[in-house]
Amino acid sequence: MAFKQVSYLLLVVLFLPLLFESSVVVNGRLLLPNQAKPDRKDYVAYARWLASQNSWGVLSTISTSMEGSPFANVVSYSDGVPGHGQGIPYFYLSTLDPTARDIEKDHRASFAVSEVPVGTCGSLDPEEPPCAKLTLTGKLYVVPNNTHEADIAKDALFSKHPIMKWWPKNHNFQIYKLDIENIFMINWYGGGKPITVEQYLQYAKMEKLAMTSFM
Amino acid sequence: MAFKQVSYLLLVVLFLPLLFESSVVVNGRLLLPNQAKPDRKDYVAYARWLASQNSWGVLSTISTSMEGSPFANVVSYSDGVPGHGQGIPYFYLSTLDPTARDIEKDHRASFAVSEVPVGTCGSLDPEEPPCAKLTLTGKLYVVPNNTHEADIAKDALFSKHPIMKWWPKNHNFQIYKLDIENIFMINWYGGGKPITVEQYLQYAKMEKLAMTSFM
Repeated sequence: MAFKQVSYLLLVVLFLPLLFESSVVVNGRLLLPNQAKPDRKDYVAYARWLASQNSWGVLSTISTSMEGSPFANVVSYSDGVPGHGQGIPYFYLSTLDPTARDIEKDHRASFAVSEVPVGTCGSLDPEEPPCAKLTLTGKLYVVPNNTHEADIAKDALFSKHPIMKWWPKNHNFQIYKLDIENIFMINWYGGGKPITVEQYLQYAKMEKLAMTSFM
Repeated sequence: MAFKQVSYLLLVVLFLPLLFESSVVVNGRLLLPNQAKPDRKDYVAYARWLASQNSWGVLSTISTSMEGSPFANVVSYSDGVPGHGQGIPYFYLSTLDPTARDIEKDHRASFAVSEVPVGTCGSLDPEEPPCAKLTLTGKLYVVPNNTHEADIAKDALFSKHPIMKWWPKNHNFQIYKLDIENIFMINWYGGGKPITVEQYLQYAKMEKLAMTSFM
Protein backbone atom coordinates (compact mmCIF):
# COMPACT_ATOMS: atom_id res chain seq x y z
CA MET A 1 0.00 0.00 0.00
CA ALA A 2 2.79 2.39 1.01
CA PHE A 3 4.65 1.41 -2.15
CA LYS A 4 1.59 2.23 -4.23
CA GLN A 5 1.30 5.63 -2.55
CA VAL A 6 4.95 6.32 -3.25
CA SER A 7 4.42 5.36 -6.89
CA TYR A 8 1.49 7.75 -7.26
CA LEU A 9 3.46 10.53 -5.65
CA LEU A 10 6.44 9.82 -7.91
CA LEU A 11 4.15 10.16 -10.91
CA VAL A 12 2.95 13.55 -9.64
CA VAL A 13 6.52 14.66 -9.02
CA LEU A 14 7.51 13.61 -12.53
CA PHE A 15 4.60 15.33 -14.25
CA LEU A 16 4.45 18.60 -12.26
CA PRO A 17 7.54 20.09 -13.95
CA LEU A 18 6.04 19.29 -17.36
CA LEU A 19 2.89 21.15 -16.41
CA PHE A 20 4.81 24.19 -15.26
CA GLU A 21 7.32 24.17 -18.10
CA SER A 22 4.56 24.35 -20.67
CA SER A 23 2.88 27.28 -18.96
CA VAL A 24 4.09 30.75 -18.11
CA VAL A 25 3.37 32.89 -15.08
CA VAL A 26 3.22 36.45 -16.36
CA ASN A 27 2.45 39.17 -13.86
CA GLY A 28 0.56 36.86 -11.61
CA ARG A 29 -1.56 35.55 -14.45
CA LEU A 30 -1.06 31.90 -15.42
CA LEU A 31 -1.37 31.54 -19.17
CA LEU A 32 -1.97 28.06 -20.47
CA PRO A 33 -0.56 27.65 -23.95
CA ASN A 34 -2.42 26.37 -26.99
CA GLN A 35 -5.86 27.09 -25.54
CA ALA A 36 -7.95 28.49 -28.32
CA LYS A 37 -4.92 29.50 -30.41
CA PRO A 38 -6.48 30.01 -33.84
CA ASP A 39 -5.41 28.21 -36.97
CA ARG A 40 -2.40 30.02 -38.41
CA LYS A 41 -4.13 30.41 -41.75
CA ASP A 42 -7.01 32.31 -40.16
CA TYR A 43 -5.04 35.57 -40.15
CA VAL A 44 -7.82 37.79 -38.81
CA ALA A 45 -8.58 35.45 -35.90
CA TYR A 46 -4.88 35.19 -35.13
CA ALA A 47 -4.42 38.98 -35.05
CA ARG A 48 -7.46 39.42 -32.79
CA TRP A 49 -6.23 36.61 -30.55
CA LEU A 50 -2.81 38.31 -30.17
CA ALA A 51 -4.54 41.60 -29.30
CA SER A 52 -6.83 39.95 -26.75
CA GLN A 53 -4.28 37.68 -25.06
CA ASN A 54 -1.53 40.21 -24.44
CA SER A 55 -1.67 42.75 -21.61
CA TRP A 56 1.28 44.97 -22.58
CA GLY A 57 3.19 46.04 -25.66
CA VAL A 58 5.27 48.89 -27.05
CA LEU A 59 3.61 52.10 -28.20
CA SER A 60 5.65 54.30 -30.52
CA THR A 61 5.13 57.95 -31.29
CA ILE A 62 6.90 60.78 -33.09
CA SER A 63 8.99 62.38 -30.35
CA THR A 64 8.61 66.07 -29.68
CA SER A 65 11.62 66.25 -27.36
CA MET A 66 13.84 64.34 -29.84
CA GLU A 67 12.93 66.34 -32.93
CA GLY A 68 10.75 63.89 -34.81
CA SER A 69 12.63 60.71 -33.95
CA PRO A 70 10.48 57.66 -33.19
CA PHE A 71 10.04 57.04 -29.46
CA ALA A 72 9.16 53.51 -28.29
CA ASN A 73 7.57 53.07 -24.86
CA VAL A 74 6.43 49.98 -22.91
CA VAL A 75 2.77 50.33 -21.89
CA SER A 76 -0.13 48.26 -20.58
CA TYR A 77 -3.32 48.08 -22.63
CA SER A 78 -6.57 46.22 -23.08
CA ASP A 79 -8.80 45.55 -26.06
CA GLY A 80 -11.77 44.62 -23.86
CA VAL A 81 -13.08 42.84 -20.81
CA PRO A 82 -11.66 39.28 -20.84
CA GLY A 83 -13.75 37.29 -23.28
CA HIS A 84 -15.18 40.39 -24.94
CA GLY A 85 -12.24 42.02 -26.72
CA GLN A 86 -13.07 44.26 -29.67
CA GLY A 87 -9.56 44.51 -31.12
CA ILE A 88 -9.11 48.22 -30.39
CA PRO A 89 -6.27 48.86 -27.94
CA TYR A 90 -7.09 51.25 -25.09
CA PHE A 91 -4.35 52.78 -22.96
CA TYR A 92 -4.22 54.64 -19.65
CA LEU A 93 -1.43 57.20 -19.90
CA SER A 94 -0.28 60.12 -17.80
CA THR A 95 0.68 63.41 -19.44
CA LEU A 96 3.79 63.17 -17.25
CA ASP A 97 4.85 60.44 -19.71
CA PRO A 98 6.60 61.43 -23.00
CA THR A 99 4.20 59.31 -25.10
CA ALA A 100 1.11 61.28 -24.05
CA ARG A 101 2.97 64.56 -24.59
CA ASP A 102 4.05 63.45 -28.10
CA ILE A 103 0.43 62.70 -28.99
CA GLU A 104 -0.59 66.27 -28.21
CA LYS A 105 1.48 67.40 -31.22
CA ASP A 106 1.27 64.41 -33.58
CA HIS A 107 -1.37 61.70 -33.30
CA ARG A 108 0.48 59.14 -35.39
CA ALA A 109 1.35 56.03 -33.39
CA SER A 110 2.29 52.37 -33.83
CA PHE A 111 1.68 49.62 -31.29
CA ALA A 112 3.39 46.22 -31.31
CA VAL A 113 2.80 43.01 -29.37
CA SER A 114 4.48 39.62 -29.52
CA GLU A 115 3.21 36.08 -29.03
CA VAL A 116 6.10 35.48 -26.61
CA PRO A 117 4.32 36.81 -23.47
CA VAL A 118 1.23 34.74 -24.33
CA GLY A 119 3.39 31.69 -23.68
CA THR A 120 2.70 29.80 -26.90
CA CYS A 121 6.00 30.26 -28.78
CA GLY A 122 7.66 27.30 -27.05
CA SER A 123 11.35 27.17 -27.92
CA LEU A 124 10.96 29.37 -31.01
CA ASP A 125 13.10 32.48 -31.22
CA PRO A 126 10.97 35.66 -30.84
CA GLU A 127 11.99 36.74 -34.38
CA GLU A 128 11.11 33.43 -36.05
CA PRO A 129 7.95 33.92 -38.13
CA PRO A 130 5.89 31.13 -36.46
CA CYS A 131 6.30 33.04 -33.16
CA ALA A 132 3.76 35.67 -34.17
CA LYS A 133 3.89 39.44 -33.91
CA LEU A 134 1.28 42.11 -34.51
CA THR A 135 1.69 45.81 -35.24
CA LEU A 136 -1.31 48.15 -35.25
CA THR A 137 -0.53 51.55 -36.74
CA GLY A 138 -2.81 54.56 -36.84
CA LYS A 139 -3.66 57.59 -34.73
CA LEU A 140 -3.86 57.81 -30.97
CA TYR A 141 -6.59 59.98 -29.44
CA VAL A 142 -7.81 60.83 -25.95
CA VAL A 143 -11.19 59.23 -25.26
CA PRO A 144 -13.29 62.05 -23.71
CA ASN A 145 -14.58 61.38 -20.22
CA ASN A 146 -18.28 60.81 -19.61
CA THR A 147 -18.86 59.16 -22.98
CA HIS A 148 -20.10 55.66 -23.73
CA GLU A 149 -16.69 54.78 -25.18
CA ALA A 150 -14.95 55.98 -22.00
CA ASP A 151 -17.09 53.52 -20.01
CA ILE A 152 -16.20 50.69 -22.42
CA ALA A 153 -12.52 51.60 -22.27
CA LYS A 154 -12.50 51.83 -18.48
CA ASP A 155 -14.12 48.42 -18.16
CA ALA A 156 -11.58 47.04 -20.65
CA LEU A 157 -8.58 48.56 -18.87
CA PHE A 158 -9.60 48.12 -15.23
CA SER A 159 -10.69 44.50 -15.67
CA LYS A 160 -7.27 43.46 -17.00
CA HIS A 161 -5.25 46.00 -14.98
CA PRO A 162 -7.15 46.47 -11.69
CA ILE A 163 -4.29 48.47 -10.14
CA MET A 164 -4.96 51.31 -12.63
CA LYS A 165 -7.98 52.33 -10.58
CA TRP A 166 -5.59 53.34 -7.81
CA TRP A 167 -3.09 55.31 -9.86
CA PRO A 168 -2.57 58.85 -8.52
CA LYS A 169 -5.34 61.26 -9.48
CA ASN A 170 -2.93 64.19 -9.75
CA HIS A 171 -0.89 62.54 -12.53
CA ASN A 172 -3.53 63.37 -15.09
CA PHE A 173 -4.12 59.86 -16.39
CA GLN A 174 -6.34 59.81 -19.45
CA ILE A 175 -7.80 57.07 -21.60
CA TYR A 176 -6.41 56.82 -25.13
CA LYS A 177 -7.50 54.70 -28.06
CA LEU A 178 -5.68 53.72 -31.21
CA ASP A 179 -7.66 54.39 -34.38
CA ILE A 180 -6.20 51.59 -36.47
CA GLU A 181 -5.28 52.39 -40.07
CA ASN A 182 -2.83 49.60 -40.87
CA ILE A 183 -2.32 46.03 -39.64
CA PHE A 184 0.99 44.20 -39.93
CA MET A 185 1.08 40.62 -38.69
CA ILE A 186 3.52 37.79 -39.18
CA ASN A 187 2.48 34.39 -37.83
CA TRP A 188 4.26 32.14 -40.34
CA TYR A 189 6.89 32.25 -43.07
CA GLY A 190 6.26 34.39 -46.14
CA GLY A 191 6.11 37.94 -44.77
CA GLY A 192 3.21 40.06 -43.53
CA LYS A 193 -0.24 38.49 -43.83
CA PRO A 194 -3.05 40.30 -45.63
CA ILE A 195 -5.53 41.70 -43.08
CA THR A 196 -7.69 44.75 -43.69
CA VAL A 197 -8.77 47.03 -40.86
CA GLU A 198 -12.40 46.20 -41.68
CA GLN A 199 -11.82 42.46 -41.43
CA TYR A 200 -9.97 42.93 -38.16
CA LEU A 201 -12.58 45.14 -36.50
CA GLN A 202 -15.56 43.15 -37.73
CA TYR A 203 -14.22 39.79 -36.65
CA ALA A 204 -17.12 38.31 -34.72
CA LYS A 205 -15.90 35.02 -33.35
CA MET A 206 -13.66 36.58 -30.70
CA GLU A 207 -15.94 35.97 -27.76
CA LYS A 208 -15.91 32.26 -28.39
CA LEU A 209 -12.13 32.27 -28.77
CA ALA A 210 -11.40 34.39 -25.73
CA MET A 211 -13.91 32.87 -23.35
CA THR A 212 -12.03 29.62 -23.21
CA SER A 213 -8.56 31.10 -23.20
CA PHE A 214 -8.48 33.88 -20.64
CA MET A 215 -7.76 32.80 -17.10
CA MET B 1 10.25 4.09 6.65
CA ALA B 2 7.58 4.12 3.93
CA PHE B 3 5.82 6.90 5.81
CA LYS B 4 9.04 8.90 5.90
CA GLN B 5 9.47 8.45 2.14
CA VAL B 6 5.91 9.61 1.53
CA SER B 7 6.54 12.66 3.73
CA TYR B 8 9.66 13.61 1.78
CA LEU B 9 7.83 13.19 -1.50
CA LEU B 10 4.94 15.30 -0.21
CA LEU B 11 7.40 18.05 0.64
CA VAL B 12 8.81 17.91 -2.89
CA VAL B 13 5.31 17.97 -4.36
CA LEU B 14 4.43 20.99 -2.23
CA PHE B 15 7.55 22.96 -3.08
CA LEU B 16 7.84 22.22 -6.80
CA PRO B 17 4.99 24.57 -7.77
CA LEU B 18 6.61 27.35 -5.73
CA LEU B 19 9.84 26.87 -7.63
CA PHE B 20 8.09 27.02 -10.98
CA GLU B 21 5.81 29.88 -10.05
CA SER B 22 8.71 32.09 -9.11
CA SER B 23 10.52 31.47 -12.38
CA VAL B 24 9.53 31.94 -15.99
CA VAL B 25 10.27 29.76 -18.97
CA VAL B 26 10.78 32.11 -21.88
CA ASN B 27 11.63 30.59 -25.21
CA GLY B 28 13.13 27.54 -23.67
CA ARG B 29 15.32 29.61 -21.37
CA LEU B 30 14.60 29.40 -17.64
CA LEU B 31 15.07 32.80 -16.05
CA LEU B 32 15.46 32.82 -12.31
CA PRO B 33 14.23 36.09 -10.83
CA ASN B 34 16.11 38.36 -8.47
CA GLN B 35 19.51 37.00 -9.39
CA ALA B 36 21.87 39.92 -9.71
CA LYS B 37 19.06 42.45 -10.14
CA PRO B 38 20.85 45.72 -9.39
CA ASP B 39 19.84 48.16 -6.71
CA ARG B 40 17.06 50.35 -8.13
CA LYS B 41 19.02 53.49 -7.28
CA ASP B 42 21.95 52.37 -9.43
CA TYR B 43 20.24 53.58 -12.62
CA VAL B 44 23.10 52.81 -14.98
CA ALA B 45 23.50 49.26 -13.69
CA TYR B 46 19.75 48.75 -13.92
CA ALA B 47 19.60 49.94 -17.55
CA ARG B 48 22.54 47.72 -18.55
CA TRP B 49 20.96 44.79 -16.71
CA LEU B 50 17.68 45.26 -18.62
CA ALA B 51 19.61 45.38 -21.91
CA SER B 52 21.61 42.26 -21.09
CA GLN B 53 18.78 40.13 -19.65
CA ASN B 54 16.23 40.58 -22.41
CA SER B 55 16.42 38.74 -25.73
CA TRP B 56 13.72 40.63 -27.66
CA GLY B 57 12.07 44.03 -27.77
CA VAL B 58 10.30 46.42 -30.10
CA LEU B 59 12.27 48.43 -32.64
CA SER B 60 10.55 51.49 -34.06
CA THR B 61 11.41 53.37 -37.21
CA ILE B 62 9.98 56.14 -39.38
CA SER B 63 7.88 54.25 -41.91
CA THR B 64 8.52 54.79 -45.60
CA SER B 65 5.40 52.91 -46.70
CA MET B 66 3.19 54.79 -44.20
CA GLU B 67 4.43 58.30 -45.01
CA GLY B 68 6.50 59.08 -41.95
CA SER B 69 4.33 57.39 -39.35
CA PRO B 70 6.17 55.49 -36.62
CA PHE B 71 6.35 51.73 -37.24
CA ALA B 72 6.87 49.41 -34.25
CA ASN B 73 8.23 45.91 -34.89
CA VAL B 74 9.00 42.99 -32.56
CA VAL B 75 12.62 41.84 -33.03
CA SER B 76 15.26 39.70 -31.35
CA TYR B 77 18.54 41.31 -30.31
CA SER B 78 21.64 40.86 -28.23
CA ASP B 79 23.99 43.27 -26.48
CA GLY B 80 26.72 40.66 -26.17
CA VAL B 81 27.74 37.09 -25.43
CA PRO B 82 26.04 36.09 -22.15
CA GLY B 83 28.09 37.57 -19.33
CA HIS B 84 29.87 40.03 -21.63
CA GLY B 85 27.17 42.48 -22.75
CA GLN B 86 28.35 45.92 -23.83
CA GLY B 87 24.95 47.62 -23.76
CA ILE B 88 24.76 48.20 -27.54
CA PRO B 89 21.84 46.32 -29.11
CA TYR B 90 22.69 44.35 -32.25
CA PHE B 91 19.96 43.07 -34.56
CA TYR B 92 19.79 40.57 -37.43
CA LEU B 93 17.23 41.87 -39.91
CA SER B 94 16.21 40.94 -43.44
CA THR B 95 15.63 43.66 -46.03
CA LEU B 96 12.38 41.75 -46.72
CA ASP B 97 11.25 43.26 -43.40
CA PRO B 98 9.75 46.81 -43.31
CA THR B 99 12.10 47.92 -40.50
CA ALA B 100 15.27 47.32 -42.53
CA ARG B 101 13.72 49.07 -45.53
CA ASP B 102 12.76 52.09 -43.38
CA ILE B 103 16.35 52.39 -42.17
CA GLU B 104 17.62 52.74 -45.74
CA LYS B 105 15.81 56.10 -45.92
CA ASP B 106 15.92 57.33 -42.31
CA HIS B 107 18.31 55.96 -39.70
CA ARG B 108 16.37 57.25 -36.71
CA ALA B 109 15.14 54.41 -34.48
CA SER B 110 13.93 53.71 -30.96
CA PHE B 111 14.18 50.37 -29.17
CA ALA B 112 12.20 49.42 -26.05
CA VAL B 113 12.42 46.49 -23.65
CA SER B 114 10.48 45.66 -20.49
CA GLU B 115 11.44 43.94 -17.26
CA VAL B 116 8.39 41.68 -17.67
CA PRO B 117 10.08 39.03 -19.86
CA VAL B 118 13.05 38.91 -17.45
CA GLY B 119 10.61 37.47 -14.91
CA THR B 120 11.33 39.83 -12.03
CA CYS B 121 8.18 42.00 -12.01
CA GLY B 122 6.20 39.54 -9.92
CA SER B 123 2.57 40.63 -9.70
CA LEU B 124 3.31 44.22 -10.74
CA ASP B 125 1.44 45.61 -13.70
CA PRO B 126 3.79 46.13 -16.69
CA GLU B 127 3.07 49.89 -16.60
CA GLU B 128 3.76 50.30 -12.89
CA PRO B 129 7.06 52.18 -12.46
CA PRO B 130 8.79 49.52 -10.28
CA CYS B 131 8.35 47.09 -13.20
CA ALA B 132 11.15 48.68 -15.20
CA LYS B 133 11.30 49.68 -18.85
CA LEU B 134 14.16 50.92 -21.00
CA THR B 135 14.08 52.84 -24.28
CA LEU B 136 17.25 53.37 -26.29
CA THR B 137 16.84 55.94 -29.06
CA GLY B 138 19.36 56.86 -31.73
CA LYS B 139 20.34 55.79 -35.23
CA LEU B 140 20.33 52.29 -36.66
CA TYR B 141 23.14 51.35 -39.06
CA VAL B 142 24.22 48.25 -40.96
CA VAL B 143 27.44 46.81 -39.49
CA PRO B 144 29.65 46.10 -42.52
CA ASN B 145 30.68 42.49 -42.98
CA ASN B 146 34.28 41.41 -42.43
CA THR B 147 34.91 44.01 -39.74
CA HIS B 148 35.93 43.48 -36.13
CA GLU B 149 32.55 44.83 -35.01
CA ALA B 150 30.72 42.38 -37.29
CA ASP B 151 32.53 39.53 -35.52
CA ILE B 152 31.57 40.94 -32.10
CA ALA B 153 27.95 41.39 -33.20
CA LYS B 154 27.74 37.88 -34.70
CA ASP B 155 29.07 36.34 -31.48
CA ALA B 156 26.57 38.44 -29.51
CA LEU B 157 23.59 37.50 -31.70
CA PHE B 158 24.37 33.86 -32.44
CA SER B 159 25.20 33.00 -28.81
CA LYS B 160 21.78 34.20 -27.61
CA HIS B 161 19.86 33.29 -30.79
CA PRO B 162 21.60 30.20 -32.19
CA ILE B 163 18.84 29.61 -34.76
CA MET B 164 19.87 32.82 -36.58
CA LYS B 165 22.86 30.96 -38.05
CA TRP B 166 20.39 28.87 -40.06
CA TRP B 167 18.17 31.66 -41.37
CA PRO B 168 17.86 31.60 -45.17
CA LYS B 169 20.87 33.07 -46.97
CA ASN B 170 18.72 34.48 -49.79
CA HIS B 171 16.71 36.72 -47.41
CA ASN B 172 19.58 39.20 -47.19
CA PHE B 173 19.92 39.23 -43.42
CA GLN B 174 22.31 41.90 -42.22
CA ILE B 175 23.67 42.92 -38.85
CA TYR B 176 22.47 46.27 -37.52
CA LYS B 177 23.55 48.26 -34.50
CA LEU B 178 21.82 51.04 -32.65
CA ASP B 179 24.04 54.08 -32.10
CA ILE B 180 22.47 55.26 -28.85
CA GLU B 181 21.83 58.98 -28.46
CA ASN B 182 19.21 59.02 -25.70
CA ILE B 183 18.34 56.72 -22.79
CA PHE B 184 14.92 56.67 -21.15
CA MET B 185 14.47 54.34 -18.21
CA ILE B 186 11.85 54.08 -15.52
CA ASN B 187 12.53 51.61 -12.71
CA TRP B 188 10.74 53.38 -9.86
CA TYR B 189 8.25 56.19 -9.21
CA GLY B 190 9.23 59.72 -10.17
CA GLY B 191 9.60 59.58 -13.95
CA GLY B 192 12.59 58.87 -16.21
CA LYS B 193 15.90 58.39 -14.42
CA PRO B 194 18.95 60.46 -15.36
CA ILE B 195 21.39 58.31 -17.38
CA THR B 196 23.82 59.72 -19.93
CA VAL B 197 24.91 57.69 -22.95
CA GLU B 198 28.51 57.89 -21.72
CA GLN B 199 27.61 56.49 -18.29
CA TYR B 200 25.62 53.70 -19.92
CA LEU B 201 28.31 52.66 -22.41
CA GLN B 202 31.18 52.96 -19.96
CA TYR B 203 29.53 50.95 -17.23
CA ALA B 204 32.20 48.44 -16.32
CA LYS B 205 30.62 46.16 -13.75
CA MET B 206 28.37 44.36 -16.23
CA GLU B 207 30.41 41.20 -16.52
CA LYS B 208 30.16 40.58 -12.80
CA LEU B 209 26.40 41.25 -12.88
CA ALA B 210 25.66 39.14 -15.91
CA MET B 211 27.90 36.21 -15.15
CA THR B 212 25.79 35.19 -12.21
CA SER B 213 22.45 35.93 -13.76
CA PHE B 214 22.42 34.42 -17.24
CA MET B 215 21.48 30.74 -17.40
